[in-house]
Amino acid sequence: MLKRLLTNFFLFLLMLVSPSQLIAQGNQHPSLLITNADGILIKKNVKQSLLLKKSFDEAKKIADKAIDEKMDVPFPKDPAGGYTHDRHKNNYTAMYNAGLVYTITGEIKYADFITGMLLKYAELIPILKNHPQAKGSSPGRLFHQALNDANWLVYSAMAYDCIYNYANAVQRKKIEDGAFRPLCKFLTIDLKDWFNLIHNHAVWACAAVGMTGLVIGDDTMVQQALYGTNKDGQSGFIAQLDNLFSPDGYYTEGPYYARYALLPFYLFAEALQNNRPQLKIFEHRNQILKKALYAALQQTNTNGAFFSLNDAIKDKTYISSEMVFAINIAFKEYGQDEALLNIAAKQKKVLLNSCGMKVADAISNFKGSLPEFPYASVEYTDGADGKQGGISILRSNNTKSLATLVVKYASHGLTHGHYDELNMLLYDNGNEILQDYGAARFLNVEQKDGGRYLPENKSFAMQTIAHNTMVVDEKSQFDGKENIASSYHSSKYFSSLNDKIQVVSAKDSNAYKGVVLQRTLFMVSDEKSNKPICIDIFKVASAEEHQYDLPFWYNGQLIATSFKYDAFTETQQPLGSKNGYQHIWKEATGKTNTSLGTLTFLNGNSYYSICSNADEQTAFYLARVGASDPNFNLRRETGYIIRKKGRNQLFVSVIEPHGNFNPVSESSSGSQSSIKEIATELDNDKYSVVKIIFTNGTEWKIFIVNNDNADIKHSLEISGKIFSWAGPYFLNKTK
Amino acid sequence: MLKRLLTNFFLFLLMLVSPSQLIAQGNQHPSLLITNADGILIKKNVKQSLLLKKSFDEAKKIADKAIDEKMDVPFPKDPAGGYTHDRHKNNYTAMYNAGLVYTITGEIKYADFITGMLLKYAELIPILKNHPQAKGSSPGRLFHQALNDANWLVYSAMAYDCIYNYANAVQRKKIEDGAFRPLCKFLTIDLKDWFNLIHNHAVWACAAVGMTGLVIGDDTMVQQALYGTNKDGQSGFIAQLDNLFSPDGYYTEGPYYARYALLPFYLFAEALQNNRPQLKIFEHRNQILKKALYAALQQTNTNGAFFSLNDAIKDKTYISSEMVFAINIAFKEYGQDEALLNIAAKQKKVLLNSCGMKVADAISNFKGSLPEFPYASVEYTDGADGKQGGISILRSNNTKSLATLVVKYASHGLTHGHYDELNMLLYDNGNEILQDYGAARFLNVEQKDGGRYLPENKSFAMQTIAHNTMVVDEKSQFDGKENIASSYHSSKYFSSLNDKIQVVSAKDSNAYKGVVLQRTLFMVSDEKSNKPICIDIFKVASAEEHQYDLPFWYNGQLIATSFKYDAFTETQQPLGSKNGYQHIWKEATGKTNTSLGTLTFLNGNSYYSICSNADEQTAFYLARVGASDPNFNLRRETGYIIRKKGRNQLFVSVIEPHGNFNPVSESSSGSQSSIKEIATELDNDKYSVVKIIFTNGTEWKIFIVNNDNADIKHSLEISGKIFSWAGPYFLNKTK
Repeated sequence: MLKRLLTNFFLFLLMLVSPSQLIAQGNQHPSLLITNADGILIKKNVKQSLLLKKSFDEAKKIADKAIDEKMDVPFPKDPAGGYTHDRHKNNYTAMYNAGLVYTITGEIKYADFITGMLLKYAELIPILKNHPQAKGSSPGRLFHQALNDANWLVYSAMAYDCIYNYANAVQRKKIEDGAFRPLCKFLTIDLKDWFNLIHNHAVWACAAVGMTGLVIGDDTMVQQALYGTNKDGQSGFIAQLDNLFSPDGYYTEGPYYARYALLPFYLFAEALQNNRPQLKIFEHRNQILKKALYAALQQTNTNGAFFSLNDAIKDKTYISSEMVFAINIAFKEYGQDEALLNIAAKQKKVLLNSCGMKVADAISNFKGSLPEFPYASVEYTDGADGKQGGISILRSNNTKSLATLVVKYASHGLTHGHYDELNMLLYDNGNEILQDYGAARFLNVEQKDGGRYLPENKSFAMQTIAHNTMVVDEKSQFDGKENIASSYHSSKYFSSLNDKIQVVSAKDSNAYKGVVLQRTLFMVSDEKSNKPICIDIFKVASAEEHQYDLPFWYNGQLIATSFKYDAFTETQQPLGSKNGYQHIWKEATGKTNTSLGTLTFLNGNSYYSICSNADEQTAFYLARVGASDPNFNLRRETGYIIRKKGRNQLFVSVIEPHGNFNPVSESSSGSQSSIKEIATELDNDKYSVVKIIFTNGTEWKIFIVNNDNADIKHSLEISGKIFSWAGPYFLNKTK
Repeated sequence: MLKRLLTNFFLFLLMLVSPSQLIAQGNQHPSLLITNADGILIKKNVKQSLLLKKSFDEAKKIADKAIDEKMDVPFPKDPAGGYTHDRHKNNYTAMYNAGLVYTITGEIKYADFITGMLLKYAELIPILKNHPQAKGSSPGRLFHQALNDANWLVYSAMAYDCIYNYANAVQRKKIEDGAFRPLCKFLTIDLKDWFNLIHNHAVWACAAVGMTGLVIGDDTMVQQALYGTNKDGQSGFIAQLDNLFSPDGYYTEGPYYARYALLPFYLFAEALQNNRPQLKIFEHRNQILKKALYAALQQTNTNGAFFSLNDAIKDKTYISSEMVFAINIAFKEYGQDEALLNIAAKQKKVLLNSCGMKVADAISNFKGSLPEFPYASVEYTDGADGKQGGISILRSNNTKSLATLVVKYASHGLTHGHYDELNMLLYDNGNEILQDYGAARFLNVEQKDGGRYLPENKSFAMQTIAHNTMVVDEKSQFDGKENIASSYHSSKYFSSLNDKIQVVSAKDSNAYKGVVLQRTLFMVSDEKSNKPICIDIFKVASAEEHQYDLPFWYNGQLIATSFKYDAFTETQQPLGSKNGYQHIWKEATGKTNTSLGTLTFLNGNSYYSICSNADEQTAFYLARVGASDPNFNLRRETGYIIRKKGRNQLFVSVIEPHGNFNPVSESSSGSQSSIKEIATELDNDKYSVVKIIFTNGTEWKIFIVNNDNADIKHSLEISGKIFSWAGPYFLNKTK
């Protein structure tokens, strides 16, 4: 009891000396991420918090392993995946962890290790020219690309920060003059143009130079990092904060790259908060960093995977270390939001500093089970001004088997963008139901081009046909040209996300010359079922004849189709010859003599049907990715393509989850779709009217106003009956 | 405290009146599965045990739902998946659960429900002729096949047992004469031949008639169930116990069907134990039922899935309800083995009787974490006499990432058998690495032939090429004829399962006329790595020229091959025209000019390489299932086929797990195989000698004695060096 009181009193004393006081002078060390006060507290608390202990043990294990091995600071030679590349990466990781462990334990072997290694780098770096494997406009010195050199600086600066007071003046001068200043000079002078870009690589560069500047006390470097090499604010960290995110936090390259960019953003911001609190960096632009983090998290599936928009590796989840940094720092800096704790707990790791301690404490002190992250129906604008389209995320209320419909009408997304305007993705029950292929890339796999983007990324994954959106005349949007695509974006027409009937409608008239695309997607929650029905009304209009293909890349086992098809059982050929079509095997073609085409598949424990309007001219294709793939770089995903020809067409599809399949209990029910009929009752410049009839006799009529004069009152006579409503759409249910 | 003492005293009193005493007279009710004493105890304990409460709540929910609905006992009309089929199935499930809930709670609404429903069945059953959808030699009355009628009897008899004392004499007579006796007569007289089979369907029939006999006190029925309709012991339950299992518990149809058969075996045995304890049924044949259960559990992967030998649905795990019955009953009857508790806990459900209570108690009273089920290297013989071949299961010691190699040299497996002598399966880390396709069937999916075996089950899944074993001249073993296959079995040649070097060798000379097959499989645990290497030495010998295909159906993403291949990127055609080959797309063909062919793939977080000896005549095929599949009934699995021609050939393959791939932390290491060379140094009638050289210079020489005179001492000169050993094989490691 007495011991506890004493401990508490000691903690209280520590609290009085707050981190910001400790480093307000600008030359306290360490102060980038961890402080000595943090170190003392972690040492005291480590045994009481599982999460903290696990994180500390992990850091110590990495540091100890490196100390036990023979130190090697090799002359740079290999590309990514090769020895010298991995060695330098392991070196900075080891130094970073050793710095944390030293600050916590005070054991000098860790400080010795860092000092010794930095001194070796101080001998190596001054003699380096550009890396022998360097290509392109941003070559590196230690690594083949400057981005990795910036990574090295960020982590090594944090390590140096931890042993700054341990090293003597001679060592410090040697390290700073030999290792840090030359690399920073390289980034800000030799690679000045790259450094001054508004791009995620340059965020790393600014964080690298800025954090180094803070450690070695060079304010010029800090200013250059904040405001660009000219210190005019046209570039640098602040300009990046202002321009890489939309006002509500959407990152233009998409969620997979948002995750990557959040690490240097949050790290440098935290270092600035600790050393330049007067900047109030976390308040900047109405807390843009908070918005950016929450936007990235909203752009994940319930299994943690980031939506696979643009170039995205699907395995990447919010468990990744970038998100540990961002969530831990945000938790401390933005009011300790309990909504973050569930994800933080799943990460099973915290930062070894005040941020991580707060997270670990909050989790272990939480009474009851941690609340789920509050996934919501939400929209984000794109563009620094928020005026370059955006994305809508429609979610069902039921959190257990949360359904998520993503609709994209954003700008191209820079070099990692895909030609996918008006694309849609559907997740249900934690599974991908209608998928975006993501990127053709095997991260870090040596045999797969060393983990780089594979040729099929451009020839297939980026092409329009690889997405769940309309393809006109077997060409990609904007003719597959990035410079053209980057000049345009689709636009939201209307949306409503707050009711049992959620809807978003977006238009595009630039992706294909002379063709106007308008897609309206509904998510309708049924009172009886906990699974929402999605309705996809895709209007295409042109003065010329075209071929229109609407693909649905479904994930699952094909169960049945309502239409007859001929399967190519003995010879299989590609669906086309270019624009991604060359990568698709044509497995079957179908026709129908009814007005409905239904495809049913099984995914996990649920059936799904895609039910679409059709006529005798409609062609159905069952497709599989994998043609023209000499190196087996593509996953064999399954597709369903609906093809219509003409000038104007209205593609109406109901995507219905239904039934239940349980192979363990051997039960299966509701394997048939409940959609009986889909009909277009009217489709002109002003209105589209669609009728959906269910097998139980229920009938839905959906009215969409097609011109932009939508908010007034409308009245229409359909089959002798007059329907009146106000606003851009109307859903009328009758039994 | 006093209350607790009283409770304990009460429990003590209950114990004195043991179930066997209660029912020794043969007319105590209920006594098949649950007793009134059990009911009282469960009612008292249900709130203290989560597992018991969950199981009770579930039973109550099923019963309550049925009571709330309108009772329907429809005239039989539909096949499996249709309304009347599902209705009768739901009816007996509801009665069974209501019986348990009534015995526990004493609430008469449950007894009323059962009585009312059985009276309805008593009116329906006497007027039934064979089911309108019945086909084949065992038609049903309530259902399309008699098997389901037997299911109905088993569950309804248990329900009737529970309300026996509640119903009055008039009701009892009506129920017994109208519902139970006619159906039992149907099984024992109309379907006498079927009833007397030694087959899993007949186990259900015997359990049905026997359990009914116990409830209604008809000893003739019990005797017929035990000893066949002629009561001569040539058929019936005892004969089934004696003949369907091998002496060590292997079930000849394989583990998937073992699971299915265990339910009636254990249920009827428990009913007999409660009512005819003098039979000592659980002791019968040296506790054959215990051996059968443990053998079935040993034949599961660490994820719980039964090995997919013969006709098997891969999703089926030990969580299934059949295994709840078997494990709960075995736990009580066979000495409360704690090794079963981990699986029982994963089942999240216990029986509502004394067996289930014991399991629930043992789990909640267990100190510490439940021990893992003791997976071991183990062999089972096949055949009632244990002389019809068998299977070997080789396992690595490391339980965390347990690797399992399964080798099959058993008899055909009755109607569900595949032509797969000398097949091998590899599991690692809970994943299927080299897979057996299992069955082409979507259980209970209406659109997939009502859940029946699909045509592709016979045309592909059963064929030899669908398995990881040798195919001669593109034909299946025994020409794909069940009656021929059933007359033969492969034989184990030698095995050793206890060391770091585990090995099994088996031979077959009947599967292909004039061809002798001998496969020797090693699992070698390395001191450094926790992942064992498998070595596959497959010797084929014939006086005639043949084409030999050795397929490896690998599960994962192809990463690289050491040989060059031409991919069929623009047109794809089947590998052959019959015997399963018509279902395989030829994706690529390769040749090598070295003596090694390596294929590397990625599965989960690990790389795997199949490294094989080769020459310029060796052809490699990259293959995918799915050709000639007009209804998309087949999964698109990936295969790798090594083809050699000639009279005698030695196929040597090292299957090496290596490296680590983690897409979340973006790390990849060890993606290259460490096998540098594989060479045959000698291969004749007497000896095969194989050399394996690793990239680090280590060299292994493997000597196999090919004639059966293997246990003597051997001496061989290879490349001027003399090697001596005793026994059928020798592995010599040098650096």
